[in-house]
Amino acid sequence: MAVRVGVIGTGTIGRDHIRRLTRTLSGSRVVAVNDIDAGLAEKVAARLPGDVRTHGTADGLIADDAVDAVVVCSWGPAHAEQVLAAVAAGKPVFCEKPLATTRADCLRIVEAEVAAGRRLVRVGYMRRYDPAYRELKRVVDAGAIGAPLMMHCVHRNAGVPAFYEPDSTITDTAVHEMDVTRWMFGEEITTVTVLRGRRNRHSGDIDDPLLVLLQTESGILVDVEISVNIRYGYDIRCEVVGEDGTAALGDTAPVTVRLDRGITGRVPADYRERFAEAYDREFQSWLDELRSDLHGSGHTDHDGDRGPSAWDGYAASAVSDATLTAARTGSRIAVQLAPRPALYG
Amino acid sequence: MAVRVGVIGTGTIGRDHIRRLTRTLSGSRVVAVNDIDAGLAEKVAARLPGDVRTHGTADGLIADDAVDAVVVCSWGPAHAEQVLAAVAAGKPVFCEKPLATTRADCLRIVEAEVAAGRRLVRVGYMRRYDPAYRELKRVVDAGAIGAPLMMHCVHRNAGVPAFYEPDSTITDTAVHEMDVTRWMFGEEITTVTVLRGRRNRHSGDIDDPLLVLLQTESGILVDVEISVNIRYGYDIRCEVVGEDGTAALGDTAPVTVRLDRGITGRVPADYRERFAEAYDREFQSWLDELRSDLHGSGHTDHDGDRGPSAWDGYAASAVSDATLTAARTGSRIAVQLAPRPALYG
Amino acid sequence: MAVRVGVIGTGTIGRDHIRRLTRTLSGSRVVAVNDIDAGLAEKVAARLPGDVRTHGTADGLIADDAVDAVVVCSWGPAHAEQVLAAVAAGKPVFCEKPLATTRADCLRIVEAEVAAGRRLVRVGYMRRYDPAYRELKRVVDAGAIGAPLMMHCVHRNAGVPAFYEPDSTITDTAVHEMDVTRWMFGEEITTVTVLRGRRNRHSGDIDDPLLVLLQTESGILVDVEISVNIRYGYDIRCEVVGEDGTAALGDTAPVTVRLDRGITGRVPADYRERFAEAYDREFQSWLDELRSDLHGSGHTDHDGDRGPSAWDGYAASAVSDATLTAARTGSRIAVQLAPRPALYG
Amino acid sequence: MAVRVGVIGTGTIGRDHIRRLTRTLSGSRVVAVNDIDAGLAEKVAARLPGDVRTHGTADGLIADDAVDAVVVCSWGPAHAEQVLAAVAAGKPVFCEKPLATTRADCLRIVEAEVAAGRRLVRVGYMRRYDPAYRELKRVVDAGAIGAPLMMHCVHRNAGVPAFYEPDSTITDTAVHEMDVTRWMFGEEITTVTVLRGRRNRHSGDIDDPLLVLLQTESGILVDVEISVNIRYGYDIRCEVVGEDGTAALGDTAPVTVRLDRGITGRVPADYRERFAEAYDREFQSWLDELRSDLHGSGHTDHDGDRGPSAWDGYAASAVSDATLTAARTGSRIAVQLAPRPALYG
Repeated sequence: MAVRVGVIGTGTIGRDHIRRLTRTLSGSRVVAVNDIDAGLAEKVAARLPGDVRTHGTADGLIADDAVDAVVVCSWGPAHAEQVLAAVAAGKPVFCEKPLATTRADCLRIVEAEVAAGRRLVRVGYMRRYDPAYRELKRVVDAGAIGAPLMMHCVHRNAGVPAFYEPDSTITDTAVHEMDVTRWMFGEEITTVTVLRGRRNRHSGDIDDPLLVLLQTESGILVDVEISVNIRYGYDIRCEVVGEDGTAALGDTAPVTVRLDRGITGRVPADYRERFAEAYDREFQSWLDELRSDLHGSGHTDHDGDRGPSAWDGYAASAVSDATLTAARTGSRIAVQLAPRPALYG
Repeated sequence: MAVRVGVIGTGTIGRDHIRRLTRTLSGSRVVAVNDIDAGLAEKVAARLPGDVRTHGTADGLIADDAVDAVVVCSWGPAHAEQVLAAVAAGKPVFCEKPLATTRADCLRIVEAEVAAGRRLVRVGYMRRYDPAYRELKRVVDAGAIGAPLMMHCVHRNAGVPAFYEPDSTITDTAVHEMDVTRWMFGEEITTVTVLRGRRNRHSGDIDDPLLVLLQTESGILVDVEISVNIRYGYDIRCEVVGEDGTAALGDTAPVTVRLDRGITGRVPADYRERFAEAYDREFQSWLDELRSDLHGSGHTDHDGDRGPSAWDGYAASAVSDATLTAARTGSRIAVQLAPRPALYG
Repeated sequence: MAVRVGVIGTGTIGRDHIRRLTRTLSGSRVVAVNDIDAGLAEKVAARLPGDVRTHGTADGLIADDAVDAVVVCSWGPAHAEQVLAAVAAGKPVFCEKPLATTRADCLRIVEAEVAAGRRLVRVGYMRRYDPAYRELKRVVDAGAIGAPLMMHCVHRNAGVPAFYEPDSTITDTAVHEMDVTRWMFGEEITTVTVLRGRRNRHSGDIDDPLLVLLQTESGILVDVEISVNIRYGYDIRCEVVGEDGTAALGDTAPVTVRLDRGITGRVPADYRERFAEAYDREFQSWLDELRSDLHGSGHTDHDGDRGPSAWDGYAASAVSDATLTAARTGSRIAVQLAPRPALYG
Repeated sequence: MAVRVGVIGTGTIGRDHIRRLTRTLSGSRVVAVNDIDAGLAEKVAARLPGDVRTHGTADGLIADDAVDAVVVCSWGPAHAEQVLAAVAAGKPVFCEKPLATTRADCLRIVEAEVAAGRRLVRVGYMRRYDPAYRELKRVVDAGAIGAPLMMHCVHRNAGVPAFYEPDSTITDTAVHEMDVTRWMFGEEITTVTVLRGRRNRHSGDIDDPLLVLLQTESGILVDVEISVNIRYGYDIRCEVVGEDGTAALGDTAPVTVRLDRGITGRVPADYRERFAEAYDREFQSWLDELRSDLHGSGHTDHDGDRGPSAWDGYAASAVSDATLTAARTGSRIAVQLAPRPALYG
């Protein structure tokens, strides 16, 4: 039996997830959509196969008995209420990052889920499903390079969208490395520091590039170059330094061209190209879990790993908050974290 | 509406395709299975979601009104009759390679399809769906390296399965490069030559390695190293040499490890690891076409490219036949090809 | 006419330079040697072609009329007096790094050279002569990647020699990146910070790894990973991040081996293997300058670039001092630098 | 004591070798030059340090008592007589390739040297001194990849000089891979075949590209792509295929640039850039041997390997002859080789 999914938010990312659920992945059916732009929602619904309901409100969609699970792709400030409503309704909810725009709202969601007594919330940190990152974690976990001591990260964008704000380098961009750090090492981040390099002439009023320095509970030091106007393409790099060696994401250009005095591998244009497979796997993993939970018919490739939780969303928010302060003050800032509930074991 | 698929042959590859259709891809339902080992077929059926019929014969499965399309994963010698039966029933059929074990049988299928007046047969040359090969063809077609003049191919297996026979280096292994050559350049192969290198000590009674030389209608020269006992892993390489430059499949290890005096990227273990995504895309593309044909609801990512046809299966068989003769005689052998019917435009 | 060279210090590095001058490079003759171990000096002299004098003191060698130029390979604490003596004698002197073990002694040498009115001192920062570093600087200087904003450096040693001390990570190891930074960007370093990662279990009483952060006059941010017990080999990496792209040292394994499930390029064992050519070029460049100065018969490949000066030795010492303080205090420390004399233009 | 060298031929390559002997390498002095253009020879002599004699004839230079050893850089047709004259005079001679323009002349030189009873002739196959080729041979010889079975070579030039003739693809270009094959495996080449790919539009009246197929005594199969107008640069590749794995020359761009949607490593412009170090090492090795022979004062890095001999020059000529026939006839041609004299061990 297919999982019946309702999608809140039919903007770019919402439509992309609808296409994914409808055209690419196994085990789901989009049965309902909602958007603050009702006309857009209706247009999207009309193009989908089968009967798809359009709800005037997110609450209406969440309450719909035909909806087994909810995908939240609305804008950030709306996430908290929609996720809380889904939790209240006892329905699994996949929320695009951020889980909420404030640490307090993230904590409310954690508390609601803890009160509900089961994990319903999943946050869209797709890198955990990227095959290369997974292989990197496998190598590190296997102890091949000895204990991990440092991690070097590079997060480069060719440019930024119009709605990108000065804090977005931290809250939208570096937040991925915050999640990767916590996931890679299974440890919380305890302190953060931010250094500014010389300003990129393409960067307008944004401090760009930045060097964000994170340190974890056991002392692992993580440096992250954030460059969001570097023109040449989208480039994500990550190297874990161990006691005996290192492991790093490879340069994975599918084709190598020899032309004009050079040997060239192509760089992805943006995150959609780089992480297309990660998005697919993330959603398929969620659908498999839901099928398993709802119908006992699914299966999980990921060994009991249930994906980024509300706690992960909260922790990312806490690190992000500390990093904003670190950027403003120039000081090393300690991350403030509530005690971790047993639910997130 | 999902495409209702019947699968003939529930051995390793058949079960892998059933898993793919059931767990990974969008738009199909496996509704019937058949195997010469009836007990195996029943066991496989029992583990699938929904009602799945088990047929005692391939003909019974093909005739089943609940079956929209047929997947043939039986052993090679059974392919021809099963594909012909599907064509006779007017049902789309996906046949794992080879299309048939003789050139004459391949031609019978081509003729049956021509008589039927529409393309029903698809052959499992999955490399055409590998993202790296597709990008390589895109670069070549775009003229970036000038007109193509040569292609260097390497096809290496760590070892061979128990059922591998002396001719398999050509009929099972090199046949992929024959299909790739025809697809890459949109030309038929006209002559073939085979040279033997010094024999690998791991190779038993098999001539291994071989250097297979193909030439196309316009004169493009293709050399293919076939090594099937090279121990280190499964390695597929391909470089197209043009007038101004070259384009080649990249070395795409997802992770690079620095350890023990070396920087190492991992090589795949076998074709399943290397071409997992190609198999997925190949099947999804086929399902999309079927949905589009059956229900008008599918879509095709591949720009009217309908995948390897019965003609492609026949042509591969003709080149393979000529190559076997070339290997036995040591001479350059011309490929014998029937006229190409208009159906394959 | 060959330059007649006297070598002070015939230990490992001294004998290596003697071999270089005698067997590999053009335009010099070793005519005199000195070592605190007189027996060793005599043994070395005996094995050299031609007549080679052994001097009982460094001063004696420097005063010898048969000596045109002096190479100082004694231990660090002796450098200052020997270099000052050569300057006093008006003889060109090549001094292995460090120029002196204290910032004050470095400054005395600078002042002596300024008083002498001409540049006689050269310091052995060989990376400036490494072909890859030179090409990297060329690309950056050409503006190909836009203005430089950041530089990521990695300096890894498989292990450390017995005489390595806790401060050596900074004074012996990171000092190379301090010189590279100054040379690459033609700017002084203004501030330094040091962060510690989790301690490597192989590192004994040494803080290892370290992350050293340098910032230059124009704000370019340089991060340097120092790992001195990482076992897998000697690995030097450097990437300059510009406004439009980046340029980095390549991975230059001369041979790629496919074996045991991996594609592997070898890492150098140590700095001698990695920088052998840089040492040759550095010395040849010095000899060419000397021949040009002494006899008007040499030529210079390096376009008026006269190599690392006494000022460069002093500045490296100043940055190194500040970095030691930064490591002890955990704070960002400003580099204290005397005004730059006009002699160093 | 420096080896006193006389250079015959002061054209481009002659002047390059003179510069090498004078400015870069250790242990020699150019004391005499000769050229058919006497004015050119005088101009070159005038610019050299020390007294340099200009001889009106090659024979005069060879006979000069002040000349210890001869370097032959005249045009090909003059090589045989000049080398024979040096052998007759009992003087070591370094001859740029080809040793002679006919197989018969090569054999005369071999016979003269055998009659002289000692090895005086060295031929300029510089690839044997390229560090990457040497490392490749070391890996193969160590048995790391098992017994060698095949070798894939690529020899690409961006374009050809004005004096390049149709046969030059074989006699000038492929001849390097013929020498590499013999040296790599320590075996003679027994048969050759030539295939033509589609013609490059830049190639004028030259058959370009070619696929040259060599087979050695033990059956090792070597394929060589010859492309001499491929525009993008000078690219030399070589992979030895063994029973358990392969070893190949790496892609060794010193710097990797990320710009304009690509990660690019630069390709050399021509053989001078690619093999500069090989030329230096080849000459230094020869000078070391000469110093050792003449004065007992040299040393040899290359473990008794005395470099390409007259026999190597003769064998290359024999393979080249057979290849020209193979290209004309389209057949597999056996290489005709005189018995190998004991002098060449």
